[in-house]
Amino acid sequence: MALPVERTATGREYKVKDMLQADFGRLEIELAEDQMAALMSCRFEFGTSQPLKGARIAGYLHMTPQTAVLIETFTALGAEVRWCSSNAFSTQDHAAAAIARDSAAVFAWKGETPQEYWWCIERALDWGPGGGPDLIVGDGGDAILLILEGIKAEETYEITGNLPDPASTKNPELQILLTIIRDGLETDPKRYHKMKERLVGVSEATATAVERLYGMQADGTLLFPVINVNDSVTETKFQNSCGCRPCGPDGLLMAADVEIAGKVAVVCGYGDVGKDCATALKKSGACVIVTEIDPIRALQALMEGILVLTLEDVVSEADIFAVTAGGSKGIITVDHMRKMKNNAIVCNIGPFNNAIDMSGLETFPGVKRVTFNLRTDRWVFPDTESGVIVLAEGRLVNLARATGHPSLTTASCSFANHAMAQLELWMERDTGKYEKKVYALPKHLDEKVAAYHLGKLGAKLTKLSKEHTD
Amino acid sequence: MALPVERTATGREYKVKDMLQADFGRLEIELAEDQMAALMSCRFEFGTSQPLKGARIAGYLHMTPQTAVLIETFTALGAEVRWCSSNAFSTQDHAAAAIARDSAAVFAWKGETPQEYWWCIERALDWGPGGGPDLIVGDGGDAILLILEGIKAEETYEITGNLPDPASTKNPELQILLTIIRDGLETDPKRYHKMKERLVGVSEATATAVERLYGMQADGTLLFPVINVNDSVTETKFQNSCGCRPCGPDGLLMAADVEIAGKVAVVCGYGDVGKDCATALKKSGACVIVTEIDPIRALQALMEGILVLTLEDVVSEADIFAVTAGGSKGIITVDHMRKMKNNAIVCNIGPFNNAIDMSGLETFPGVKRVTFNLRTDRWVFPDTESGVIVLAEGRLVNLARATGHPSLTTASCSFANHAMAQLELWMERDTGKYEKKVYALPKHLDEKVAAYHLGKLGAKLTKLSKEHTD
Amino acid sequence: MALPVERTATGREYKVKDMLQADFGRLEIELAEDQMAALMSCRFEFGTSQPLKGARIAGYLHMTPQTAVLIETFTALGAEVRWCSSNAFSTQDHAAAAIARDSAAVFAWKGETPQEYWWCIERALDWGPGGGPDLIVGDGGDAILLILEGIKAEETYEITGNLPDPASTKNPELQILLTIIRDGLETDPKRYHKMKERLVGVSEATATAVERLYGMQADGTLLFPVINVNDSVTETKFQNSCGCRPCGPDGLLMAADVEIAGKVAVVCGYGDVGKDCATALKKSGACVIVTEIDPIRALQALMEGILVLTLEDVVSEADIFAVTAGGSKGIITVDHMRKMKNNAIVCNIGPFNNAIDMSGLETFPGVKRVTFNLRTDRWVFPDTESGVIVLAEGRLVNLARATGHPSLTTASCSFANHAMAQLELWMERDTGKYEKKVYALPKHLDEKVAAYHLGKLGAKLTKLSKEHTD
Amino acid sequence: MALPVERTATGREYKVKDMLQADFGRLEIELAEDQMAALMSCRFEFGTSQPLKGARIAGYLHMTPQTAVLIETFTALGAEVRWCSSNAFSTQDHAAAAIARDSAAVFAWKGETPQEYWWCIERALDWGPGGGPDLIVGDGGDAILLILEGIKAEETYEITGNLPDPASTKNPELQILLTIIRDGLETDPKRYHKMKERLVGVSEATATAVERLYGMQADGTLLFPVINVNDSVTETKFQNSCGCRPCGPDGLLMAADVEIAGKVAVVCGYGDVGKDCATALKKSGACVIVTEIDPIRALQALMEGILVLTLEDVVSEADIFAVTAGGSKGIITVDHMRKMKNNAIVCNIGPFNNAIDMSGLETFPGVKRVTFNLRTDRWVFPDTESGVIVLAEGRLVNLARATGHPSLTTASCSFANHAMAQLELWMERDTGKYEKKVYALPKHLDEKVAAYHLGKLGAKLTKLSKEHTD
Repeated sequence: MALPVERTATGREYKVKDMLQADFGRLEIELAEDQMAALMSCRFEFGTSQPLKGARIAGYLHMTPQTAVLIETFTALGAEVRWCSSNAFSTQDHAAAAIARDSAAVFAWKGETPQEYWWCIERALDWGPGGGPDLIVGDGGDAILLILEGIKAEETYEITGNLPDPASTKNPELQILLTIIRDGLETDPKRYHKMKERLVGVSEATATAVERLYGMQADGTLLFPVINVNDSVTETKFQNSCGCRPCGPDGLLMAADVEIAGKVAVVCGYGDVGKDCATALKKSGACVIVTEIDPIRALQALMEGILVLTLEDVVSEADIFAVTAGGSKGIITVDHMRKMKNNAIVCNIGPFNNAIDMSGLETFPGVKRVTFNLRTDRWVFPDTESGVIVLAEGRLVNLARATGHPSLTTASCSFANHAMAQLELWMERDTGKYEKKVYALPKHLDEKVAAYHLGKLGAKLTKLSKEHTD
Repeated sequence: MALPVERTATGREYKVKDMLQADFGRLEIELAEDQMAALMSCRFEFGTSQPLKGARIAGYLHMTPQTAVLIETFTALGAEVRWCSSNAFSTQDHAAAAIARDSAAVFAWKGETPQEYWWCIERALDWGPGGGPDLIVGDGGDAILLILEGIKAEETYEITGNLPDPASTKNPELQILLTIIRDGLETDPKRYHKMKERLVGVSEATATAVERLYGMQADGTLLFPVINVNDSVTETKFQNSCGCRPCGPDGLLMAADVEIAGKVAVVCGYGDVGKDCATALKKSGACVIVTEIDPIRALQALMEGILVLTLEDVVSEADIFAVTAGGSKGIITVDHMRKMKNNAIVCNIGPFNNAIDMSGLETFPGVKRVTFNLRTDRWVFPDTESGVIVLAEGRLVNLARATGHPSLTTASCSFANHAMAQLELWMERDTGKYEKKVYALPKHLDEKVAAYHLGKLGAKLTKLSKEHTD
Repeated sequence: MALPVERTATGREYKVKDMLQADFGRLEIELAEDQMAALMSCRFEFGTSQPLKGARIAGYLHMTPQTAVLIETFTALGAEVRWCSSNAFSTQDHAAAAIARDSAAVFAWKGETPQEYWWCIERALDWGPGGGPDLIVGDGGDAILLILEGIKAEETYEITGNLPDPASTKNPELQILLTIIRDGLETDPKRYHKMKERLVGVSEATATAVERLYGMQADGTLLFPVINVNDSVTETKFQNSCGCRPCGPDGLLMAADVEIAGKVAVVCGYGDVGKDCATALKKSGACVIVTEIDPIRALQALMEGILVLTLEDVVSEADIFAVTAGGSKGIITVDHMRKMKNNAIVCNIGPFNNAIDMSGLETFPGVKRVTFNLRTDRWVFPDTESGVIVLAEGRLVNLARATGHPSLTTASCSFANHAMAQLELWMERDTGKYEKKVYALPKHLDEKVAAYHLGKLGAKLTKLSKEHTD
Repeated sequence: MALPVERTATGREYKVKDMLQADFGRLEIELAEDQMAALMSCRFEFGTSQPLKGARIAGYLHMTPQTAVLIETFTALGAEVRWCSSNAFSTQDHAAAAIARDSAAVFAWKGETPQEYWWCIERALDWGPGGGPDLIVGDGGDAILLILEGIKAEETYEITGNLPDPASTKNPELQILLTIIRDGLETDPKRYHKMKERLVGVSEATATAVERLYGMQADGTLLFPVINVNDSVTETKFQNSCGCRPCGPDGLLMAADVEIAGKVAVVCGYGDVGKDCATALKKSGACVIVTEIDPIRALQALMEGILVLTLEDVVSEADIFAVTAGGSKGIITVDHMRKMKNNAIVCNIGPFNNAIDMSGLETFPGVKRVTFNLRTDRWVFPDTESGVIVLAEGRLVNLARATGHPSLTTASCSFANHAMAQLELWMERDTGKYEKKVYALPKHLDEKVAAYHLGKLGAKLTKLSKEHTD
């Protein structure tokens, strides 16, 4: 598939829904700038020295007004940027139009087909014959996957002369990807190798992609340095954990149009995420019940006035089930779901996709799936005509992300971490500091991001005098 | 203007955006039924006895899945229903399609022009030559206004033979309304008189319309009985006051895409609404400051750990300003707004439209208004290039309503109150119980609505024994 | 009984435990002054004009450092004061010593016998042959009761020549009181009549005494004007309702040495006091369950995430039972108490003494009462050996009062209301404004008390401009 | 000093205030048993097997009803126990009497002089000529200090024949201790050596003592195994951190009789303790301000709606200052204290004694110290006559401990940890598992203590099935 690419008056490529929305997009970007304190401070600090001069950055991250502030921080620091969205439905078309018109090559629109989605990724990585990006901003591994599969196919082709065969797999996503690689392979049989050669590093923000990258590091197949911004403190404190506030109750509200107040909500697991989730649900007026396997955590819940029971005790009476436990599978089974009230809501606020037994649900004889929206399905059991609402197909309800970024400080931290990581990778590109490994974001950059916000929010830090530290 | 009216196979009239969305609308209505506990209990209690048999109900209220549950409660109880929306932008087209196909005559779609909006109202009131509705469900006074202006024009026409002249007014809404009346007048010069004759009563849910109706009662110009459901306890406790939860922080989030946490929020007034608003903002992570004129309320705020200062003290440092004070005008003046931080947010959570000096703002020399969405404008001052964000044009940020009904128990209470009121008016239509006055919803009906919810939410009421009350 | 009265160097009478504690008492009074913002502001405002010059004030109120600040406010404004405690155990001896030495005639010590308790009251009322006080500060009705019984006895004596006979009653308190009256009657057969003649008015702060005074007003037997400070807004908002904070969880802690966190607490009734109590218990880490008879209140509890069940549902599983319901008797019956867990705690946070069926408990065959401290009894049932802990003998756990005043703003409001009332009664003594009725504290004085605190707490009130109120 | 020791009918030694209080003490112990769920479960589990048969346990820990439950758990498991208090003022005499009469050799009363305090410790360690205890329960290092100083003195004496000279030190505590050792040395010059030989191990619960023991381990001077129960999870989660609830606001209330609501409270440091302290103060109605040096923590405070400022910004306006920061000295200096409001309250909720500059305060020219009670001093500056209230002499306001244990689950966890540690040390006494080192309480024992509580509090743990963990 080859869609027509358009060009601005200055010759920059793009493909967006409607360039007429650019003015409105600009308005919302200006509003978002006000909320993205860290990025704006970053521009202020580094803008004149142009540290990213000469850097090519490819971004793969929801194309929203907040992301626009990140993109224009990169261009303000001197970089040349190409961008696509990490989700086929999350693009805000007016923001995409404004960026396409004013700042960077954008390939993104709301409602891309799978073919279009992968085409956009390919476009974002393509700087023409001269190769790919120096740096990649990653939010999930698809952009990286394309490069890796491309390299694999090129190697096979070099040795055997065989082109990749999309029919060799049943995975429809992989079919599309192989088609794209196949179609480009004869034109330039070293394209992805050249990309890899040029690539200085990647900053990655999602837990699952980071996990996969660590796996590659362990296997020795990691081909470039990675800075993991997902585990930075500002990310974990404010994105993963405080993010439960918008992610939990607000997410439920938005996904399933349900009021929390007056409902019985079961939170499976009372670790950090579970605590935040329980607190957020309590503040929204739910009666919260916790399930736990660890006696100390159970006692902590009790001391906060929260009943600790087993899932079996409450499965047929609760209205909302949020799984936050990590490391276990099948916390909520099909049997549990069959015992739930009609239209009980089941969601996963933890990182493990198998915490809710989705495959058991999908293969339950006669089960019917009714899709309400991107994140909400009702699964109806044939014998009872009763159904449960499962959010986000049982995967992490990272709703904040999916709707753009309701929690702006969250986005502000996360995106500023990306900016810090990209700057670091670029500045150290020739020093050998970063090998082909996954690195945590250096602590001082993490703190810098927090500090950037403080001024905007009117806080004053205490400085330690010598006396104090003696 | 005469738009083509369509008809279902059974001959029922409608005009909606897209009948193909009816199946999806039905799905969401089924989901909403689960949340509208009181209406479903009402159907269960009264369905077989068909108490509304023979009643014609015209509804003027946002056409959403929740409203659909109300409409189908009326039809389940035997009524014949016609419906339009009380807001040109609030209709959810899939819900409108489902109702049009299955249950009632609907004239509503998202994004009606002013002409279309009034045409829909006229359609909803029109039962053909035989006259109008027996009962009206009101959510703002426009449906009533059309009838009253119609009667006035008919009287003038009878006496003077003069048709109403739209050019006689500068008010664009009134021009449309007079045009509609004029165009119908020659066909049937007694149409609105006949409507009035037939009308048994109205239930009304908005504060401003209720206020106007009390005014008519005082003037002796009220032409029919009204039950005021806006001041019922279940309405005020859960819609007006608890409604601050979705209305306040959530509303801010949705309207202006702003995170509350870390912001300084000023709440003007610490009455019931102010307390709820302050609590909701604190729970969302704001640092809340209160302004008050009453020393006792001020002390109450203090004892909750909230600073009490004057607006002048904080006007240039706060991020969010929420006015909840009643009975005073110009709480927030243009002078205040000029001193605020760029993109400070100003909104009104109280019932008085003049609490924020909008006319002063609109007439400020050189001020520029930039509209973001239906509820959000940025007003930029010419000299400073700094601007404030004003929500809902300075009127009550009744955002819950405007987006459909995120707070479902709220909608559930409000709509069930409508149902109770309509039933009451209809059952008592021949007893003379209700004269041409505004009545509060009888207390036992109010309690019935609360009680309807309790079972659904798993609560058990204590019953007083004789011993207790001796 | 006639105890020896001592005299200071200046001739002022007193009887306290240990005059050597006066210095230490003075220290604590100085500390308390800092907390009693309203009284100190009152001294500052009125001290120079000496408005109470010539007034004799008798006070009947716990003799604590906080009360000392009230007493010395009276003397600072010119009054002559005599004082006793309203509770035989609440006197803080060092505070009593300091006041006796420096400011007023005090008759109070911790651990008075019933005889001593009544002797102290008599002393506080006795200004010698010239009669009694002009004003009385009341905290419970005992000082008033002595005067009323005295008058009755004098009337009987005048007519029949009969002295009152303590043996005529089985009530041991009344026996003591009649003895005191009898012993004084022959010396001065018009003593209590003269007291009544002189008495300008009484300010009263307890609900039960106020209730009795309203009863007298209804019977026409009220002999003097009363200002009811118990129902003033600053009293009800901060003493009765916010007072639940120290009164509820803190009170439980102090009385029964029990931790709230992790316990299941049942709150009977979800009115104003019930809401405050439930909130305070939740904040302390209890899992709170509410019982209610009113569906609207029940729904309010639910919407705050609180389960609503019947007492029967939870009686055998909860740890703490707090009755806040008003107007009903026997909310918690002996049958309930028999079903409770061993050492479940039962207390009454409402104004009605019969909400817990104490007489049923006391007369239960074979029940054993074990007293832990002034406010805590364990009642053991003979068959099960299981017992319940009942606080404050089932009466209002007004623990704040009983331990002195842990909630100082509470005391500060309450005592300042007394001061305002006394000033008002005295200033208007000749105007006829106050008849022999019970009056609410005038609103402007109530607000003055709130306003007095604001400055101290750093708050700034907003002043309405003319524009606002137009 | 040699006080007379008394004996029970069975010959067990004791010295308490008043044996007549034993019945009342027994009542309170029974009440406390109900709260000490873990210890009672421990008795239930181990009582029949008598695992401590033959063990001599010396305890050095506040002699309260809660401690009595610990002591009687030891005796129920077969141990022989001697006990003294770790604080001269914390003994509850009725509990001491009950234990002395029924269970163990107690040497403790409220208000011991320093001489008496050390005499009690010596008594608790003295099993007669046969030597000392097998196990020591420690709460602060004084019991251990006596043994170590004893050994040192015996060594010197053996070599030089010199007796320890109390006059050789200016430290009054050390003088007493040396006197005791000197007076016993000639009777038995190997007494403390024999104690050391017998000693199987120590469980220690205070941070400072544990720190000193780790120091000894590092120096190679630790003479016996220690289990550190201070850092067990149930201790840190519930004693150190949740303990802030009673320790913070309640402690302030008790120590200085101050109401928190309406006050401005500054919390220095927003680590774990700081967060808990800030939350507790907010719940009590304070307006909380945080000072921080770390930008990430500062941002966390902000996102909870808490202002972050420097101490200088607020020093003259706040009412309460709570230092929670660790690792720094002089957080609050004399200069700060001089700028505070009169009677501002200063306290230390962190482990470092020099966080508040007490020596600077004590040596300030002309400063006057006024002692209110054990934990409360007012320090008045000579020039301003203004003073600050310093709690607990600037050391950790571990008020929970000092008043007995208001937080019973806290005590219950802490004491059960002691019991687990003692059992472990005793069971493993011959296995060589524990060397002369400081050990953490084994994780499974820590969890056992949490689990003990769950049943009592009605919680049910979830058990992992094999499926989950696959």
